[in-house]
Amino acid sequence: MLEHEIYTLLESNGFKVPQYKLFKLNEVPSIDFYPIALKIHSSKIIHKSEYGAVKTAIFDDIGYKKAHDEILQNIKNYGVSLDSNDCFIATSMINGEELFCGVIDDTVFGMNIIFGKGGIFLELYKDICYIDIFANEDEIERAIKLTKISKIFSGFRNFKYDIKIIIDFIKNVQEFVKKNENIKELDLNPIILNSDGVFIVDARIEFDELKTSSEKPRQRINSFFDNSSIAVIGASSNPNKVGYAIAQNVLSFKGEVFFVNKKGGELFGKKCHKDIVEIASNIDMAIISIPPAMVLDEIKKLVKKDIKNIIVISAGFKEIGNLVGEQQIKDLADLYNINIIGPNCLGYYESTKNLNATFATKNVISGDIALLAQSGAVLSALMDKAYDFNIGFSHIVSFGNMIDLNFAQTIEALQDEPTCKYIAIYAEGIKDGKAFLQSVRNSKKPIFVCKTGKSELAKKAAFSHTGNLSGNYATFEGLLKSVGANMVDNIEALILAPKKRSNNILIITNAGGPATVLTDYIVARNGRLYNLSENDIRLLNGVLPSNWSKNNPIDIIGDARSDRFESVLEVIKEFEVDLVFVIVTPQFMTDALSIAKAIYKASKTKSIIPIMLGGDSLGDAKVFFKNEKMVYFDSLQEATSFL
Amino acid sequence: MLEHEIYTLLESNGFKVPQYKLFKLNEVPSIDFYPIALKIHSSKIIHKSEYGAVKTAIFDDIGYKKAHDEILQNIKNYGVSLDSNDCFIATSMINGEELFCGVIDDTVFGMNIIFGKGGIFLELYKDICYIDIFANEDEIERAIKLTKISKIFSGFRNFKYDIKIIIDFIKNVQEFVKKNENIKELDLNPIILNSDGVFIVDARIEFDELKTSSEKPRQRINSFFDNSSIAVIGASSNPNKVGYAIAQNVLSFKGEVFFVNKKGGELFGKKCHKDIVEIASNIDMAIISIPPAMVLDEIKKLVKKDIKNIIVISAGFKEIGNLVGEQQIKDLADLYNINIIGPNCLGYYESTKNLNATFATKNVISGDIALLAQSGAVLSALMDKAYDFNIGFSHIVSFGNMIDLNFAQTIEALQDEPTCKYIAIYAEGIKDGKAFLQSVRNSKKPIFVCKTGKSELAKKAAFSHTGNLSGNYATFEGLLKSVGANMVDNIEALILAPKKRSNNILIITNAGGPATVLTDYIVARNGRLYNLSENDIRLLNGVLPSNWSKNNPIDIIGDARSDRFESVLEVIKEFEVDLVFVIVTPQFMTDALSIAKAIYKASKTKSIIPIMLGGDSLGDAKVFFKNEKMVYFDSLQEATSFL
Repeated sequence: MLEHEIYTLLESNGFKVPQYKLFKLNEVPSIDFYPIALKIHSSKIIHKSEYGAVKTAIFDDIGYKKAHDEILQNIKNYGVSLDSNDCFIATSMINGEELFCGVIDDTVFGMNIIFGKGGIFLELYKDICYIDIFANEDEIERAIKLTKISKIFSGFRNFKYDIKIIIDFIKNVQEFVKKNENIKELDLNPIILNSDGVFIVDARIEFDELKTSSEKPRQRINSFFDNSSIAVIGASSNPNKVGYAIAQNVLSFKGEVFFVNKKGGELFGKKCHKDIVEIASNIDMAIISIPPAMVLDEIKKLVKKDIKNIIVISAGFKEIGNLVGEQQIKDLADLYNINIIGPNCLGYYESTKNLNATFATKNVISGDIALLAQSGAVLSALMDKAYDFNIGFSHIVSFGNMIDLNFAQTIEALQDEPTCKYIAIYAEGIKDGKAFLQSVRNSKKPIFVCKTGKSELAKKAAFSHTGNLSGNYATFEGLLKSVGANMVDNIEALILAPKKRSNNILIITNAGGPATVLTDYIVARNGRLYNLSENDIRLLNGVLPSNWSKNNPIDIIGDARSDRFESVLEVIKEFEVDLVFVIVTPQFMTDALSIAKAIYKASKTKSIIPIMLGGDSLGDAKVFFKNEKMVYFDSLQEATSFL
Repeated sequence: MLEHEIYTLLESNGFKVPQYKLFKLNEVPSIDFYPIALKIHSSKIIHKSEYGAVKTAIFDDIGYKKAHDEILQNIKNYGVSLDSNDCFIATSMINGEELFCGVIDDTVFGMNIIFGKGGIFLELYKDICYIDIFANEDEIERAIKLTKISKIFSGFRNFKYDIKIIIDFIKNVQEFVKKNENIKELDLNPIILNSDGVFIVDARIEFDELKTSSEKPRQRINSFFDNSSIAVIGASSNPNKVGYAIAQNVLSFKGEVFFVNKKGGELFGKKCHKDIVEIASNIDMAIISIPPAMVLDEIKKLVKKDIKNIIVISAGFKEIGNLVGEQQIKDLADLYNINIIGPNCLGYYESTKNLNATFATKNVISGDIALLAQSGAVLSALMDKAYDFNIGFSHIVSFGNMIDLNFAQTIEALQDEPTCKYIAIYAEGIKDGKAFLQSVRNSKKPIFVCKTGKSELAKKAAFSHTGNLSGNYATFEGLLKSVGANMVDNIEALILAPKKRSNNILIITNAGGPATVLTDYIVARNGRLYNLSENDIRLLNGVLPSNWSKNNPIDIIGDARSDRFESVLEVIKEFEVDLVFVIVTPQFMTDALSIAKAIYKASKTKSIIPIMLGGDSLGDAKVFFKNEKMVYFDSLQEATSFL
């Protein structure tokens, strides 16, 4: 598309463009909108700058003549012959803030908008945000405010721009893209913001004639979480088999349990059916752990039992190239409207009926976090850690190869589960990004997301055009933040962050240095320290030596023994704080075990995290916390990593 | 200073400034360097913009007339009367890259230069670097390259600027500041870089008539580390006293040890002298742990014993407001040329003679890291952790209130200590920044620095003028990096980073997910993964199942038991890697303890860090590592925090 055609298209869609005029090659101009830029306007010359066919900052007719002649000479020097189809285009130069707006078709999230600082700063400082094409006004504003340049909308220096102008502009871009479904890429660079509005100075549009809408009808999963009867297919008496661990773990299920193994016999005192067909009643959920080639046949039998939900633990499908086997299962599930988790997964846990249908630890505590993940190993490590930390789950879902049930459907279904208060997600790759965004956008429950693949961005360091931005961590993070998800940067935070994220943090310490370091970490994570009131200080004066810090962090001095820790913890009981870090360093007088006991006691009424900053000298205290299943850290940085 | 006076001053110092001309208020101009900016030039009007007394982008005589009249009208509207002392200044407008250069007098580091991207981007993106006024060319270049804008010197887009031009400019700024010692602040904003050189377009200079050089002659510490005889003043038989711990810890000293306590008696089988004067021989080093009021008298007695080095453990000085007591000690030390460490410190350790003159743990292993710190609590925690991790020290110095011996002197003295290979510094505040920089600049041994107080920057978020940049973490970090120090962001890294920082990292894992996360962390910390050669892959094929990852991370698949770990660790023995992370997740088949044993065995010939990613299921393995004093982590993030 030639420049004036793009301008016409944009204008007819409600965008502002610079004033412009076309002139024949040797026409004597009559321009009343200096200063201008002058460019050749010819389908023979695409990259105008490279031909010396662009001149900017032309202020009068004399300048025009000079620029005009130079451009023609430059083109001639390159050996290009112009004809009567070609002409000049003069565009008014617009002053203002140089911004950028682009639209890309991301492999995961589909069409989305990138907005930020334009010009070379786009590449140097990458000060941009990501906005879904279906984002509402709130989301657009939230996303824009993630950029540094957005300070020009909030009183920075003398800037007095209203953010509404940019929001409206972006809404118009959304409309434009929705109306023109075959747009593949849109590059508005730069757009200029000034007191008259937003002007698109240069635009590149790519259309894709073959593009078709990839929207699939979304499946509604019915009562996935509510099962009265389950069957373990491949329940095994061999402790080295996965089917043994699952059979053992499901024993605590508050419902009917059936074991199936072609060898028959007995397992954990229960009958082992040789075949599913032997079971008289219907079955709500089956957990399958048998060789991959046999899975399909078992599912066929399960259809006759009116099965609703199937968890395919068995590996040996897509991950080793067995695409056909996987597709066959998927087709069957679609045909009979069965929900499938897996294959190649760790299993499933649900707290209400105490169903632990995983081959991970049997030590799972009931709680209010729903944990969803692709990697079984990450899930298994987190389940282990959660038990150590006394953290409980309402649901755990291991998606494995994720042929059917996915993040979006599960998030949606979890909305109706009263046991689930938080949703924590470990994601490696998302398939239907739009549906995922929609489910997060609609979630009434806080969502925490950890995503791997940041270094994909590092590999694709180029960033030379917007196409390079697609399908990467930055897009994922930007879009997820704009729909309100909490992004966390380490897997442990998935189980720790939901319960502890807080604004009024108090630090109690027996050493000043480490408390300073901790303060830095808290500030770096946007945590906020609680301000001691005068009354707080008065109360603390009553139990502390006169040289205590009189401030938060509360430095209770290196000679503090357990009695002083106990008194302080008693006093701060009444403070309006969300979270208390207690730093214990091994000083000469430190009776670490007694201090640990005092902390443990106080933790019954207050959210306390001890940081045991030492090794062997604090060994007893650490063992005590471990035995009491109380979360503690022995590194300042790790202790704040979930904030 | 008026604008043309500043221009004259700058020009006479070898700087380029725009072409400019002064005109009487009603003079008819003759300007041959359009486009220009026109400004009023009057001592009555300081903030010209606020009076509407600046007009830019004037392209011809007509524009000049218009701007001229408008400026006079604007000033009149503000009620200011101009007279024959006032005039106009016209300056040529210069196109090019808008940069910034400032000089500030930092409270810690003295005069130093800030360079970076100019204009509003200075505030928004803070893309700046810090350069000492005494920095050499290498340092200047290293610092500049820490900025993103420096990409214009390395082929970014079509930029073809030579970094040498900016280096020369900064060298000229250094000369200018050295020649004009009473400069307090210099604000060159913007400077414009184009093909003709660097132009200072606007400058503000503040002089401080009272400023005097604060350089003090530096003391050379003689043989601080070499002591043949030591005395513990305040050696105590009461296990609740610090003097007991010190007396016990120094027993292993390979030299003569004297105990002094006014009560006399015996301690650990040695005579306890009632008074220093009882000791016949001279003493090289004294460790004092008695009530603060008595310290001065004891030092006076020590002078008679030809004492060279004193460690004042005793607290009760500046930190509780006792400035006089502290100064008296300092004066005495100056008078008799005694080196003092402390007061209010944890003590001192030196490996050659196995001198542990601290009241921290007695478990210190001899090694090659010299650890210097202000906070005794941080030192004590690190000593504890180091013992857990089997990491040794050549020297440990706890500076406490740091009245005499400081970082710079110690770094300098450590250059001659063959046992010390790395210097690790935990700094809370530096006094003589210039001397500190000089010592790091000259150090032949790698230096690792952890500095607290980042959030000072957060508090002083304003950044509204360069003065606000002083004395903060950014200055510290910028200058330290420019002189070649390795900045680490957590205290544990001080003891871990010196030994492990590496470029060829190999990951072995029994689960793909966590390895992806780890890769992200490594990349984020600028670590580099080792590339498997074809031969490496061939060798690994020989011991691994066919579906292993064929790549680094080496995913040996979830069903890996210890024999497979052992085979892989045997194969990779010959690989040219610096560091191996082994991730163990609790999968169903995982025999964690046996795996731990295989890792431990392999660690005898290779630098290996196990990451045990789970809780109780890996408990035995963790206990095994603890007992073998082998470093391991149970969090992916923490495992990379020292890279």
